[in-house]
Amino acid sequence: MYKAKAYSAASATSPLASDIIPRRDATDRDVQIEILFCGICHSDLHSVRNEWSSIMPTVYPIVPGHEIVGRVTSVGTAVTKFKPGDLAGVGCLVDSDHTCPNCTDGLEQLCPNQTLTFNSPDRHGTAPVTYGGYSESIVVDERFVLHVPANLNLAGVAPLLCAGITTYSPLKRWGDLNGKKVGVVGLGGLGHMGVKFAKAFGAKVVVFTTSPGKKEDALRLGADEVIISTNPAEMLQHSGTFNFILDTISADHDINAYLGMLSRDGNLTLVGAPEKPIPISAFALLIGRRSLSGSVIGGIAETQEMLDFCGQHNITADVEVIPIQKVNEAYERLIKSDVKYRFSIDMASLKAE
Amino acid sequence: MYKAKAYSAASATSPLASDIIPRRDATDRDVQIEILFCGICHSDLHSVRNEWSSIMPTVYPIVPGHEIVGRVTSVGTAVTKFKPGDLAGVGCLVDSDHTCPNCTDGLEQLCPNQTLTFNSPDRHGTAPVTYGGYSESIVVDERFVLHVPANLNLAGVAPLLCAGITTYSPLKRWGDLNGKKVGVVGLGGLGHMGVKFAKAFGAKVVVFTTSPGKKEDALRLGADEVIISTNPAEMLQHSGTFNFILDTISADHDINAYLGMLSRDGNLTLVGAPEKPIPISAFALLIGRRSLSGSVIGGIAETQEMLDFCGQHNITADVEVIPIQKVNEAYERLIKSDVKYRFSIDMASLKAE
Repeated sequence: MYKAKAYSAASATSPLASDIIPRRDATDRDVQIEILFCGICHSDLHSVRNEWSSIMPTVYPIVPGHEIVGRVTSVGTAVTKFKPGDLAGVGCLVDSDHTCPNCTDGLEQLCPNQTLTFNSPDRHGTAPVTYGGYSESIVVDERFVLHVPANLNLAGVAPLLCAGITTYSPLKRWGDLNGKKVGVVGLGGLGHMGVKFAKAFGAKVVVFTTSPGKKEDALRLGADEVIISTNPAEMLQHSGTFNFILDTISADHDINAYLGMLSRDGNLTLVGAPEKPIPISAFALLIGRRSLSGSVIGGIAETQEMLDFCGQHNITADVEVIPIQKVNEAYERLIKSDVKYRFSIDMASLKAE
Repeated sequence: MYKAKAYSAASATSPLASDIIPRRDATDRDVQIEILFCGICHSDLHSVRNEWSSIMPTVYPIVPGHEIVGRVTSVGTAVTKFKPGDLAGVGCLVDSDHTCPNCTDGLEQLCPNQTLTFNSPDRHGTAPVTYGGYSESIVVDERFVLHVPANLNLAGVAPLLCAGITTYSPLKRWGDLNGKKVGVVGLGGLGHMGVKFAKAFGAKVVVFTTSPGKKEDALRLGADEVIISTNPAEMLQHSGTFNFILDTISADHDINAYLGMLSRDGNLTLVGAPEKPIPISAFALLIGRRSLSGSVIGGIAETQEMLDFCGQHNITADVEVIPIQKVNEAYERLIKSDVKYRFSIDMASLKAE
C-alpha cells in the first residue's frame, strides 16, 4: 500500500479538496498508472453530491473520476499487455466477475458484479470503496486498462473513456450508418462526441438543440444541419425522416417529439438517464414500428476498438483543460453547461501542490 | 350502387341497430364478398363510442368491423386473384396510395394515405366514409382481399384479420424464436393469438396475467408457464430472462415491471395502445440495452403469409359465435373481458332479419 495525492469530497455538501488516499501496491496482474489527465463527467458531480442515493449511495470520502489517461509506471509480474512508459486509459470499470454470460461475451459493462472505478466496494480491501481518477496515480487490473493511440492529444483523449464509448457503442451497434440520417439530441459532452462519431461513420448528421448559439459550433464539429428543437416549423419539416437518433440529454425533455422524427423502424437510443420516468406515447411507437432503447458505456474490447478508431480518424473530445484547484468552480459551470465540451483536469497541477 | 343490410350506430351514445347502407357496384378491380363472419375488435367499440376522437373522430352513422371473412359473389373484369365462390378475408385496410415508400415495400399498414375498412373517407364516393364488416356484404379492391385456407373454421378465421396479424407480425419480425423465451402480457383477443403464434414458432411461451383463473386456459392454449404478475416473488424469479415480450394490454399498466423481465438486448413490443403516456424508467432500458417498440397490424403480403401459416398449423382464434342482434350485449361483455377470446358475429343472423 502506498499513499497518493487526490481530491476528495468529505460529504454531499463539501467541496472537493486536497487529500491523501491509499492505493494498493500492484499485484501480479496490476498496472500502476501515473495519471496525466482526467475528464470531468456529470456522473462525478451526481456521485459527489449523492444525487443517485436511491440506486448508488455515495460512500465518503469520495474520489471521483472515470475518464483517466496516463502513463504506466510499473506492472505486476503477470502483466503481458503493458510495460512501463506505455500510454494507458481507464474508464468507468476496473473489474467484473469474468464469468457471467455478459463478461464471457465481452460486455463487462452489463456484469452484475462489476467494480466501478469509484464508489464501488473495493475487492482488494485497500479502502472501503474504489477511488477514481482525481488523483496522481491509480492501480488497475490489466484487463481493464486500455491502450491509447500515440497520435492523439491526451487531454482530449480522457473523455473518450466515458463520453466517447457511451456514444460510440450505440452508433456502432445500430449497423452501417453510411448515408443514413442520424440525429443527435443535445450538444454537450456526450452530444459533441456523438456528432464526431456519426460523421466518421458516414452519416448525415443533424443536431437538435434548444440553443441557437450552438449552431455554428455544431457545424464546425461536423454536423450537416442543426434543428432548433423549440421551433415547431423546423421540427415538422424533418418529421419521420431519421433512421437513428442518439439522445444525450439527462434533463427531463419531451422524447415523444423526437420519436416522431424517426422514419419507419427507426430507433431512438437514450444514453442520458433522466431521473423521472419518461412519459412515452404508445402511438409514437406504433406508427412506424419505432423503437426506444437504452445504452450504457461499452465493454472493454469495444472501448479499445473505439480508441483505435479515434487514433485512425484523429478524433478526440473538445476540452477545456483546468488545474485541479478549479474543480469546484468547474462543477458549477458544468451545471450551467458552460463548457465546450468537457473539462479535462491536468494532473500536473495536483503533483505541484 | 346497391343497398345492403348492416348494423350501424347513429351517435356515440346510440346502440348499434339494424340499418340499410349503400355499397358500390364492383368496379373492374373490385371483389364483392358475402360476409359470413365478422370478429368484434375493441377498436370497433372505441370508434362507435368516439373514444378516439382526438386522433380519429367518428363520422356517424358508423358501421364497424374489420375482421371479415366471407365468400366471393362477383368480381370486376380486371380481377385476377379471385373468382366467385372463393373464400375471402378483409382486414383493417381496404386501400392505400400504392406509391409511397411504405406501400412499395409492402407495408400498406404504414401508408399515410391508407383507407381503413370503416370510418375512413370513402374514395369511391359511395358514402362519406367507408362502412365495415357488420354487414351482409362488402366490395373491396382485390389488392386488399386475402385468400383464406379452406381447412379452417371460418368463425375462428375472422379475428385473424386483425388480432392475428397484429400479434404475428412483431413475433415474426423479431427473428428466429425457436428455443427463445417469449412473454405474452395479457390473455385476451390479442394475447391468446400471441400465445398460439409464439408456440408455433417454437418459443418457450410464458403468459403474464393478473387473473389466476386464466392459468389453466393459458396452458391449454399452448403456454409453457404462467406468471401471476401481481405476485412479486414470481416476477422476481423470472427477472432478466426474456428475449422478447409481446405486450397486448391497452389499459394503463406498469411497463417498467416487464422491461425488467427482459434479458440483454431484449425487446418489449407494444401492440395495445394505452391512451395516456406510459411512464418509462430510463434505467430499465439502459441496464441490459433493452428496447421498447410498437407494432401495428401488418402489410397485405404479410397478412396473407399469416393466413397461410395458420392454414398449415391449423391455427384459428378461440371465438364465441353470436348473432348480430347480441352485438350491444357483446360490447358490454367486452369491456369486462368476459369473452374467450373473441366474439365472432355469424352474419346469417343479419340476413335472416
